[in-house]
Amino acid sequence: MDKDNLYKIRHSAEHVFAQAVKELYGEDVQLAVAHISDTGFSNDAKWSVKLSEDDFPKIEKKMQEIIDANLPIVQKEVTREEAKEMFKNNPFKLEWIEQWDAAEKTLTVYWTGDKYVDFCKGPHVNSTGEIKAFKLLSVAGAYWRGDANNEMLTRVYGTAFGSKAELDEYLNLLEEAKNRDHRKLGKELGLFTFSDLVGSGLPMFTPKGTFLWQELASYSESLQKAAGFEQVKIPHITKTDLYKTSGHWDKFGDELFLVKSQETDDQMVLKPMNCPHHTQIYASAKRSYRDLPIRYYETTTNYRDEKAGELSGLSRVRSLTQDDAHVFCRIDQIEGEFTIIMGMIKKMYASLGLEFRARLSFRDPETPEKYLGDEETWAEAQRTIEDIAKKLEVDYFVAIGEAAIYGPKIDIMVKDSLGREWQCATEQLDFIQPTRFGLKYTDSDGQEKTPVMIHKALLGSVERFLSVYIEHTAGNFPVWLSYTQVAVLPISAEKHADYAYKIKDTLRAAGIRADVDDASETLGNKIRKAQSQKTPYVFVVGDKEVENNTVSVRARGGKDLGAMSVNDISERIKQKIEDKSMDL
Amino acid sequence: MDKDNLYKIRHSAEHVFAQAVKELYGEDVQLAVAHISDTGFSNDAKWSVKLSEDDFPKIEKKMQEIIDANLPIVQKEVTREEAKEMFKNNPFKLEWIEQWDAAEKTLTVYWTGDKYVDFCKGPHVNSTGEIKAFKLLSVAGAYWRGDANNEMLTRVYGTAFGSKAELDEYLNLLEEAKNRDHRKLGKELGLFTFSDLVGSGLPMFTPKGTFLWQELASYSESLQKAAGFEQVKIPHITKTDLYKTSGHWDKFGDELFLVKSQETDDQMVLKPMNCPHHTQIYASAKRSYRDLPIRYYETTTNYRDEKAGELSGLSRVRSLTQDDAHVFCRIDQIEGEFTIIMGMIKKMYASLGLEFRARLSFRDPETPEKYLGDEETWAEAQRTIEDIAKKLEVDYFVAIGEAAIYGPKIDIMVKDSLGREWQCATEQLDFIQPTRFGLKYTDSDGQEKTPVMIHKALLGSVERFLSVYIEHTAGNFPVWLSYTQVAVLPISAEKHADYAYKIKDTLRAAGIRADVDDASETLGNKIRKAQSQKTPYVFVVGDKEVENNTVSVRARGGKDLGAMSVNDISERIKQKIEDKSMDL
Repeated sequence: MDKDNLYKIRHSAEHVFAQAVKELYGEDVQLAVAHISDTGFSNDAKWSVKLSEDDFPKIEKKMQEIIDANLPIVQKEVTREEAKEMFKNNPFKLEWIEQWDAAEKTLTVYWTGDKYVDFCKGPHVNSTGEIKAFKLLSVAGAYWRGDANNEMLTRVYGTAFGSKAELDEYLNLLEEAKNRDHRKLGKELGLFTFSDLVGSGLPMFTPKGTFLWQELASYSESLQKAAGFEQVKIPHITKTDLYKTSGHWDKFGDELFLVKSQETDDQMVLKPMNCPHHTQIYASAKRSYRDLPIRYYETTTNYRDEKAGELSGLSRVRSLTQDDAHVFCRIDQIEGEFTIIMGMIKKMYASLGLEFRARLSFRDPETPEKYLGDEETWAEAQRTIEDIAKKLEVDYFVAIGEAAIYGPKIDIMVKDSLGREWQCATEQLDFIQPTRFGLKYTDSDGQEKTPVMIHKALLGSVERFLSVYIEHTAGNFPVWLSYTQVAVLPISAEKHADYAYKIKDTLRAAGIRADVDDASETLGNKIRKAQSQKTPYVFVVGDKEVENNTVSVRARGGKDLGAMSVNDISERIKQKIEDKSMDL
Repeated sequence: MDKDNLYKIRHSAEHVFAQAVKELYGEDVQLAVAHISDTGFSNDAKWSVKLSEDDFPKIEKKMQEIIDANLPIVQKEVTREEAKEMFKNNPFKLEWIEQWDAAEKTLTVYWTGDKYVDFCKGPHVNSTGEIKAFKLLSVAGAYWRGDANNEMLTRVYGTAFGSKAELDEYLNLLEEAKNRDHRKLGKELGLFTFSDLVGSGLPMFTPKGTFLWQELASYSESLQKAAGFEQVKIPHITKTDLYKTSGHWDKFGDELFLVKSQETDDQMVLKPMNCPHHTQIYASAKRSYRDLPIRYYETTTNYRDEKAGELSGLSRVRSLTQDDAHVFCRIDQIEGEFTIIMGMIKKMYASLGLEFRARLSFRDPETPEKYLGDEETWAEAQRTIEDIAKKLEVDYFVAIGEAAIYGPKIDIMVKDSLGREWQCATEQLDFIQPTRFGLKYTDSDGQEKTPVMIHKALLGSVERFLSVYIEHTAGNFPVWLSYTQVAVLPISAEKHADYAYKIKDTLRAAGIRADVDDASETLGNKIRKAQSQKTPYVFVVGDKEVENNTVSVRARGGKDLGAMSVNDISERIKQKIEDKSMDL
């Protein structure tokens, strides 16, 4: 079903919801405002009775009655005064009516049958019978007009589709997303933790989580090292002077964590990005055209002063680590550098089993005040970016208004196993900062020239990438990213533990991370524990295995590989590790 | 010469200096205050003429005359009123006299001969002739009484010894220390840089410096991994609540960098240490006696709000990175854990060619308010520490008052090639924080118990260790820590460059970091460049080497190894790398 029709169906379903609760609860509900989104609708209202998800069946039943009655939905034009009269008992609606664009002569209302009417711009379906499938999803709190100083209202989320099949598919996706929620899995797998004493949005990684974090970051670093990038190291704080020079202070100054020295008068901040610091390393020595490109990489933490309500697991944090890099090069080197970076991106995401498309994030010509630098430079830079995308035959689309303040960029939109898209890697062109910092190199003709800067990240924010990757894999990490790769389970702790430990030592000597679970529990329990930890391989060892000098191998997901010699299975696992293979 | 006599000599030398400048400059100098240190003396005075080191020969000549005259130095008791009358023209001295402990009935002055007198507590030598050797060293500015709100005075540094030989030895050491100054070498070798835009005390490391930094940190991490330590990861900021619980807030709250969120009301700080965060990872799961010891390590940056005037190169910075670790263990595991950690320390410092002795840093019973926890626990902990030091046969001494707030520690005092001692590694016992954070484990008897914590660092602060190590080696790093291990120099860029690059590729394939210098310069120039960069090996290649398929090898320090096959020298270098050998 096309987007416009889906919008109409959801918009009308919201009206049906509103009509149903008014019929059921009368004056106990005062309707405030509705939102239609890409996935459904929401309704904010002031409830004087307590609403919970337990009430949904009753409301859904009433909604179905209204749909079955196939009531016509009809638009009517009214004057502002008529509208005020119609909604005189609803202060929320009156506030909206007051704010309706004064230039518009007529306001519109929509009638569903002859009992329910709402002040609304539309559009809607012609009659309620067109709503073929709907579902109420959840209840939450929401401030009136999103302002924490206003009254807290009750928000109901729901969705609607053109067919039952589409709705079911969506509900399955929701259920699957819930099961894969990285916050839930992070806890179950013991990957990271938060503490009230430390504060929200500040994750701490356990050894298991750090292992995963570190392996991904090291993989990114190894690709960069191989491509001639060199590691540098910068402090996490700086005087504001650095950002006054770069231009970030004017644009983002009020979004930064301020750092107050009690010993000096220095005005400092926690760094929200690394480029200005890296320019200072470039500037620490004379550079010649022969030295370029100079490529600095660093996996380092930045800080974002997010509102507490916007923080969520690893997706939205206050300290996030980027696998960042900055290339300083000549104009004639831009294409080569973009090509090298795109090569790393392709290799990394292929290894991780993730598809992507490229978003060319350009400047919005309507809001020039959001960007640094002149129009002509921007036009040229955007041309360059698009030429490169074409040349590299990347699947791309253009997004106006998504550029960085200093230049256009290619953002990598990664598609996860539920079909959701996430912005991860990025490569960005920057003609602005090198000029602002007065960076120079001596060209072959002896002239002082200004280099171009390219910003890049492969994973993006490691924390955010982890949230995507945990949900993409549902915690079933490939062997190379698994903290415990093999769980060796003796059938009898007493009789088979020695053999189990011998197997473990053999595996460890082969570079495979193996552990023995010799707890005095049933084998079934121990297998379930290993499964719940999503351990790729379980080796069961009992009398038969000891006698034959084998192990009975079960791969994650229930695949029974049968009895194998330790040597054979080791070779297989080592190959899977080396190939960064997704299967077992 | 013993310390007391040395003190007297330097104190008297300072009087001789003061007498000399009064005789030479009269009312142009108003004497203020003197300091006697472990290495010499200093004199602060208000100079109405400009003094520079060029004036030292003249002043030293006058001082020598006073010494040659062998004037007696004699103490006299005076009343406060008499003292005020004697120094009525000197406001600095009058201020001192006012502050002289009111309880003391008599004040003392010291006469040198009958012309010079100073208000002074002594002690002094009997006559100026006892000053056998002295030297004026430098001129600097210093605020009256060290307070930046007061007048800026002129400070002259000098020293004196019991013999010419001792003075010469000290001056040689000073000269050598100057040549090895890590700030100077850091610049010459291009290891790190500072920027006025970023701020003082915030070093940024170039690729060369980062390499050195990273190799040392990785070596420390590899020792820890091998000993069963597991990596964790924590944010660099926290709510102050964490330190209110740990007890650090009360003790150090006014020495921290405060972090101000503009979006929330959170009271936050930059972390000055990692232990409280690590307790929160421990606390994130149930622990059993079988899980202990749990050993977390992390190379992570802490922040110290140092006064701007106290910052110096990498020795004293505002962002410093520790190779930190925390062990959570049972009481019966303390000795084992201390032994493991001491084993790592011994291995690391032997590899780095540094000797050390252990300082047992105990609590000062005179200032109990500086420490957390009760006397009995401290006594027991200190006994444990000393028992371990004895058992491990470590060369140790006890230092009262050097303990951490939460427990006694073993600090590793490293001796550098100039005989100076630096505190680097540390291992610390902590009975306090686990209690304050309510940490628990279930013991074998089913009881909930509190674990003990051990803090350790091997390098200490990586930045500070680097400052020590750069000066210890004078930048002549062992091969494994050298960014460029081999410089391949073609005699003629035109004729021998191809061969040079072939050699470089062979070396790189063998895992040796080699570079070619094919600049169109004389061979002499290129050799000097490689020498100034302290490159361990220089391979010269010309007609003869191409013909014989060899390289002519010069090791750093001028050792000529002659013509060798690439294979032979590669094997030698690889062995030196593997052994972390100090020689070439």
